Amino acid sequence: MNVTRTVAETRAALAGLLRPLGFVPTMGALHKGHLALVAAARASCATVVASLFVNPTQFSAGEDLGAYPRDEAGDFESFEQAGIGLVFAPAATELYPDGFATAVSVRELTEDYEGAARPDHFGGVALVVTKLLNIMRPDTAFFGQKDAQQLAVVRRLARDLDLPVEIVGVPTVREHDGLAMSSRNAYLTADERAVAPDLYRALLAGAGAASRPGASGKDAVAAAASLLLGQAGSSRPSFSIDYLATVDADTFTQTDMLEPHTLLIAAARLGKTRLLDNISLSPSAYPERDATA
Amino acid sequence: MNVTRTVAETRAALAGLLRPLGFVPTMGALHKGHLALVAAARASCATVVASLFVNPTQFSAGEDLGAYPRDEAGDFESFEQAGIGLVFAPAATELYPDGFATAVSVRELTEDYEGAARPDHFGGVALVVTKLLNIMRPDTAFFGQKDAQQLAVVRRLARDLDLPVEIVGVPTVREHDGLAMSSRNAYLTADERAVAPDLYRALLAGAGAASRPGASGKDAVAAAASLLLGQAGSSRPSFSIDYLATVDADTFTQTDMLEPHTLLIAAARLGKTRLLDNISLSPSAYPERDATA
Repeated sequence: MNVTRTVAETRAALAGLLRPLGFVPTMGALHKGHLALVAAARASCATVVASLFVNPTQFSAGEDLGAYPRDEAGDFESFEQAGIGLVFAPAATELYPDGFATAVSVRELTEDYEGAARPDHFGGVALVVTKLLNIMRPDTAFFGQKDAQQLAVVRRLARDLDLPVEIVGVPTVREHDGLAMSSRNAYLTADERAVAPDLYRALLAGAGAASRPGASGKDAVAAAASLLLGQAGSSRPSFSIDYLATVDADTFTQTDMLEPHTLLIAAARLGKTRLLDNISLSPSAYPERDATA
Repeated sequence: MNVTRTVAETRAALAGLLRPLGFVPTMGALHKGHLALVAAARASCATVVASLFVNPTQFSAGEDLGAYPRDEAGDFESFEQAGIGLVFAPAATELYPDGFATAVSVRELTEDYEGAARPDHFGGVALVVTKLLNIMRPDTAFFGQKDAQQLAVVRRLARDLDLPVEIVGVPTVREHDGLAMSSRNAYLTADERAVAPDLYRALLAGAGAASRPGASGKDAVAAAASLLLGQAGSSRPSFSIDYLATVDADTFTQTDMLEPHTLLIAAARLGKTRLLDNISLSPSAYPERDATA
């Protein structure tokens, strides 16, 4: 496996690779969710390349940039075992040299939810994804459905800027108890980890409520909130809900209509850890719907 | 010559063209300045393609978007005679479909001068250039030195977003009396047209002042202002100066130092027409310096 550190090296190395080329961007701290992205890429592409870059511009002030889990050697080994041909792992100064002055933003679908909670986040994501797609020039790029708003932003960005790439969303990979895989799960204490799967159970309860005849998005939200907050007052760690809402998966505007594109999305804190998850309210859209823990 | 209207058609047509590929983006209303871009492109590229698109996002409210000169049939003929292989001439809805939500901006070097005079201008330029470069995927793209701040913005944008393209600035083409070629010269009345070359004469006077031992940028600005405003009070149309300044050509920050990258830049109004021009204060940088009218 080829590890490149500069844009120039990367371009030179990419020139000789077989196409179609699949690309998996990551911030490292790899888990089975990342490996599912690689597996999806390998299923449709002759060559799969990845990036490992903890992008500073997508962290807002006071967030966990400094504490974000890093294990470059372990990540390289995981990439190699997963069949990755090239990993681009630049220093921050390579992607953001002196005099860097350009911003990319996606309006409207970044106003609420993660965009409201993390003011600089999606601007940083849009910027680094634009750069990485211009460097790697893949035919297809793979993103997790767990970060559903990010996936919507990247799809819109690629369409609006005419980036010649197909964006593929890959289903969320879960622990055996249903907790969505995330590098940030490493922040959870043992007590918090025991409670964390309640977030997905709450989404399943919401999806169950939504499946009843005549139900609306409000019913899904109420059922999920009831499950998530039902344990409060006990001695277990309790969730603090950032948001729990039904939205259109493409526009991330709130909707009470239950349609094929409607997602039930959640962000909630357990102690210092912020967990994200979502579930489709369309009976057929997401396989997780049936993979009940 | 192939005329394409959609991104998909354009991509299909480009796939078969010989490389290196040169690209000349235009808003039409072609003049010898545009043809100099095409000639520069033909000198170094196997195939030259162009775009013809009056980009609405780079016009601020109240500007001349509706009045901007349009002659598509004449422009196609000029492109064909100049040896252009393909012209992409999309409708605005092709580049900005419903739900368009993405913005690209370059900070710092867009704050002053044209950026201050035309608040939305460089955001629109950055956006459409990013899109056109992603659609055309040229090896080299050609821009006029007359729009010096735009050239600086495009160079920074391409570097910052890792657009895999070389940006080439082409020297300003002038009328016999020194007036810089511009599609907007068509707005000038006969009386204004007679006076318009004073703008370039003022820049030459500034460059002359700058060439004296011990001179600073202030001397260049003073000499240019003196020539430009010296005729005021007569019955001739008179200039109203928007700005007249010495700047670094890469950062567009004001500087009094006379260095190889220092430009004397000017924007001035004659009646309803706003004229732009610039001259390098480095003895060797711009050929116009010696091509005195």
